[in-house]
Amino acid sequence: MTQSARAQEPGTTVTLHPGDDGSGAVRRTVLPGGLRIITEAIPSTRSASFGIWAGVGSRDETPEDAGASHYLEHVLFKGTRRRSALEISAALDAVGGDLNAFTAKEYTCYYARVLDADLPIAVDVVSDMVAASLNRPEDVEAERNVILEEIHMRDDDPGDLIHDEFSTALFGDVPIGRPILGTVDSINALSRDRIHAYYRRHYVPSRLVVAAAGNVDHDAVVRLVTTAFAELPGVEGDLPAEPRIGGPAVPTAPTVRVVDKDTEQAHIVLGTAGLCRTDDRRFALGVLNAALGGGMSSRLFQEVREKRGLAYSVYSYTAQYADTGLFGVYAGCQPGKADEVLSICRDEVARVAETSLTEEELERGKGQLRGGMVLGLEDSGSRMSRIGKSELVYESLLPVDEVLAKIDAVTLDDVREVGRDVLTRPGALTVIGPFGDRDFTL
Amino acid sequence: MTQSARAQEPGTTVTLHPGDDGSGAVRRTVLPGGLRIITEAIPSTRSASFGIWAGVGSRDETPEDAGASHYLEHVLFKGTRRRSALEISAALDAVGGDLNAFTAKEYTCYYARVLDADLPIAVDVVSDMVAASLNRPEDVEAERNVILEEIHMRDDDPGDLIHDEFSTALFGDVPIGRPILGTVDSINALSRDRIHAYYRRHYVPSRLVVAAAGNVDHDAVVRLVTTAFAELPGVEGDLPAEPRIGGPAVPTAPTVRVVDKDTEQAHIVLGTAGLCRTDDRRFALGVLNAALGGGMSSRLFQEVREKRGLAYSVYSYTAQYADTGLFGVYAGCQPGKADEVLSICRDEVARVAETSLTEEELERGKGQLRGGMVLGLEDSGSRMSRIGKSELVYESLLPVDEVLAKIDAVTLDDVREVGRDVLTRPGALTVIGPFGDRDFTL
Repeated sequence: MTQSARAQEPGTTVTLHPGDDGSGAVRRTVLPGGLRIITEAIPSTRSASFGIWAGVGSRDETPEDAGASHYLEHVLFKGTRRRSALEISAALDAVGGDLNAFTAKEYTCYYARVLDADLPIAVDVVSDMVAASLNRPEDVEAERNVILEEIHMRDDDPGDLIHDEFSTALFGDVPIGRPILGTVDSINALSRDRIHAYYRRHYVPSRLVVAAAGNVDHDAVVRLVTTAFAELPGVEGDLPAEPRIGGPAVPTAPTVRVVDKDTEQAHIVLGTAGLCRTDDRRFALGVLNAALGGGMSSRLFQEVREKRGLAYSVYSYTAQYADTGLFGVYAGCQPGKADEVLSICRDEVARVAETSLTEEELERGKGQLRGGMVLGLEDSGSRMSRIGKSELVYESLLPVDEVLAKIDAVTLDDVREVGRDVLTRPGALTVIGPFGDRDFTL
Repeated sequence: MTQSARAQEPGTTVTLHPGDDGSGAVRRTVLPGGLRIITEAIPSTRSASFGIWAGVGSRDETPEDAGASHYLEHVLFKGTRRRSALEISAALDAVGGDLNAFTAKEYTCYYARVLDADLPIAVDVVSDMVAASLNRPEDVEAERNVILEEIHMRDDDPGDLIHDEFSTALFGDVPIGRPILGTVDSINALSRDRIHAYYRRHYVPSRLVVAAAGNVDHDAVVRLVTTAFAELPGVEGDLPAEPRIGGPAVPTAPTVRVVDKDTEQAHIVLGTAGLCRTDDRRFALGVLNAALGGGMSSRLFQEVREKRGLAYSVYSYTAQYADTGLFGVYAGCQPGKADEVLSICRDEVARVAETSLTEEELERGKGQLRGGMVLGLEDSGSRMSRIGKSELVYESLLPVDEVLAKIDAVTLDDVREVGRDVLTRPGALTVIGPFGDRDFTL
């Protein structure tokens, strides 16, 4: 089975997955300019989700470009050769569709979810935005303030801000450690020409993946996308970009960051560098994370909230990137209880690192991942995201049943080993709260 | 067709909707103690959502009980005669299901979403929580702190806090105007006995509705629920409670509330009392709301964000209650721009009240509501919510195609009339930001 898009003959279509109970049929076409179009058919649904994934994110920014990926994501809604900003949004509003986008550290996605009959509108509008954006100076200017307001809004929500601060605490002032939004200074410094050059450089067909899922017909999607991309055909012979895997090891320089803020709660994240997204141990780490802080029955929830009533929100989480990852624990509590909560969280993390889980926790963690995965793939939007993102960042699309099998195969020893490695790495700590110049130590 | 549960013979099952393209078959059984069980079959899905709706919310609280509905919602997760808190959460975590609850002003809902094969677990656990909660003093104590932390977390997020403040600004210090969470003082004052009495009084079968949607079989659900409710059969002969409709007119005493807080943004809500949920004009108000501030193509988004870049987040919204409602406009902007943003929002609201919409806006607003409604009913959770909530608060379940027909029937005159009424009612205003003792005026 041809799995790599780079090895696929341009202009041809392959079936990546024939479809069965757990998944619909997945097909991929590579256009001559390197644009990949991947679809998953779910005939039982009435909706269709369409997305364009660009293989660029905040990690690709120089310090001078900081925030450019996200800034550009905003500007792409402002107008094309064929449509004003109002025409872009009105087209999807008129059919009750969702039109949105998000920027991550390693990719950017523009997407729409519509009733299946309205798929042609979604394809035309989203493709137009991505392929033919004007990035007019006046639009770049107007959007600058919107982004500054988005930064201020993030600053006003400590439960949001803490995660940006923690990235910096863990990775330092390097691209992966900097906030996706950029900073007030970096946004103010970005010129229209820089934004436009960024667009020209990164939004080329060979670095884009088009994904559709729902009640969609692959050949129809290919025809619609080919027409919509007429203005951005790419260079004939360009191969699809390599998947975003590996790279030089990311040095971490974990630190303690205390942000003094007049909040009611102390907001705390502590954690370490996790696993990269191709690390086979990620399934074991997923099970560990579920048992440690992934649900209401997890150790952190039980110890911090259920038994002691110290927090409303407490959980652990993981993130995966091409060459590194992140494991974190969040808690929000009374400032006067911060030390106690930190101590409990540290103890629970250390205990898992030393002694792994119980049999019961292992089985429950596996069940939680399995059920959560299947339930999480019920709507067309999550299906679209799975195939689109996978095409951009993995060598091949792992069928759902293979993922489930990998979860099933996790043993207590696997969990112990990955816990001993990941949870004992040098840790970073971030605290937001009314702490003046008080120190916290790792 | 028998539509009212009160008129249905106890122990019988009726078909409320035979099922067609837009909806699955909807059936209802009334048990002898007045418990209603309503299901919607969606055979094409692999999931099942199960919920129990209690006809009690923060509006039912005396000042002494303020916050009791939500407090009780928390305590119901703490243990039953058969299960500890850990056993409750572990049962659903083990199958990767979601278990959660929410409290509103007029009802409270406990729900789980699972793979269809796991429905019996969901029914058993959620029913056990609702029917056989122990409300032990030590659990009430431990949960008190969790709720205080939830209040502090809300206080730390001005985009959340503003909506509670606005309710009070609009309705005053009356049950519907008070925050669902209660206050630090009211939560500290609530005793275990009061909470338990509240539970005994309000959680009786005749005031509960059980709802399930997804790949479910009605008779199987009835059997499971009957078994699970063995401990709370209710009083034979009790009829299901009347739907929550009407009531004495709610006097509004709109005021201006300024909350001085050291935030980056000014967070603003202005609005009026809207329509109650049985008002036929709600469809026209829905279209008006969509066009005024419901999407990216709306007037507020275009004027405040797209053209002037003054805000990241700006929108209008409506809420419906038994006897009143709420229409509001939110914007977050630089504190120095608050007056300008307020002035634009007021102008746009006044303009719609005076001159209605354009034909194009009318059609777009209708399309937005139609598409949004159908897309919003794709998952089993939203289907469960629709039938469960409807049973509690409407005379009858409006089929989806009738709702779509009512949206289609809205005219420019309807929009003009409802706009002239609702948007010109006495308005309330709430502002959170670094404003010291500065005044704002309506």
